[in-house]
Amino acid sequence: MARPVPSPPARRKTPREAGRRSDCPIANTLDIVGDRWTLLVIRDLLRGKRRFVEFAASPEHIPTNLLSDRLKRLEEAGIIESRLYRPHPPRSEYVLTAKGEDLRPTVRAVVAWGLRHIPGTAERA
Amino acid sequence: MARPVPSPPARRKTPREAGRRSDCPIANTLDIVGDRWTLLVIRDLLRGKRRFVEFAASPEHIPTNLLSDRLKRLEEAGIIESRLYRPHPPRSEYVLTAKGEDLRPTVRAVVAWGLRHIPGTAERA
Repeated sequence: MARPVPSPPARRKTPREAGRRSDCPIANTLDIVGDRWTLLVIRDLLRGKRRFVEFAASPEHIPTNLLSDRLKRLEEAGIIESRLYRPHPPRSEYVLTAKGEDLRPTVRAVVAWGLRHIPGTAERA
Repeated sequence: MARPVPSPPARRKTPREAGRRSDCPIANTLDIVGDRWTLLVIRDLLRGKRRFVEFAASPEHIPTNLLSDRLKRLEEAGIIESRLYRPHPPRSEYVLTAKGEDLRPTVRAVVAWGLRHIPGTAERA
């Protein structure tokens, strides 16, 4: 009787096969937060803002379509969680998860660099 | 005889007048390095790569038109300096300035976050 053919050992996907640019932690992080807007939303969340209208009211005036898109992507990435605070019409508020809170050192490093090297920047009260 | 009209006191431009989104150090920093590619070039420079072909050979395979654009912007921002190392055909190499070197803590924070939170990422040897 023929012995069953063993299936080949499970091979780990290469980063490209998994749809990634590489296995570099920087590249993978930038695929989530590497744009002109996302860290500004993270900044607002770290300061306690929770609602769409609050993010939209920040001085950079993020376009609302981009804001919707970024909130969706951050939720899919497990960086924020949303909660309905009003059913009719439905309105959500957003909070950082532990994974999102852990971006604080990155945001702090960016703040420190900007303050040191870009004249005219100022820390918020 | 009429007295000369005093000129108004010099007023500091608002961030918007100066073409900025705000005076936030994060927003101003993202206007330089806030995209999917620039911090990867900074990463390569921090590791000692200096030449166009070296950056282009990194595993993420940055498109060469984007690489040219990023190098130009980084030089304009005072983050890198270029030096001709071959006149015919002209070839430049690039090094970080002190301002650019000072992005190291930011890059380290991004690396640390990626390693902690994105499965499958790995530190380079």
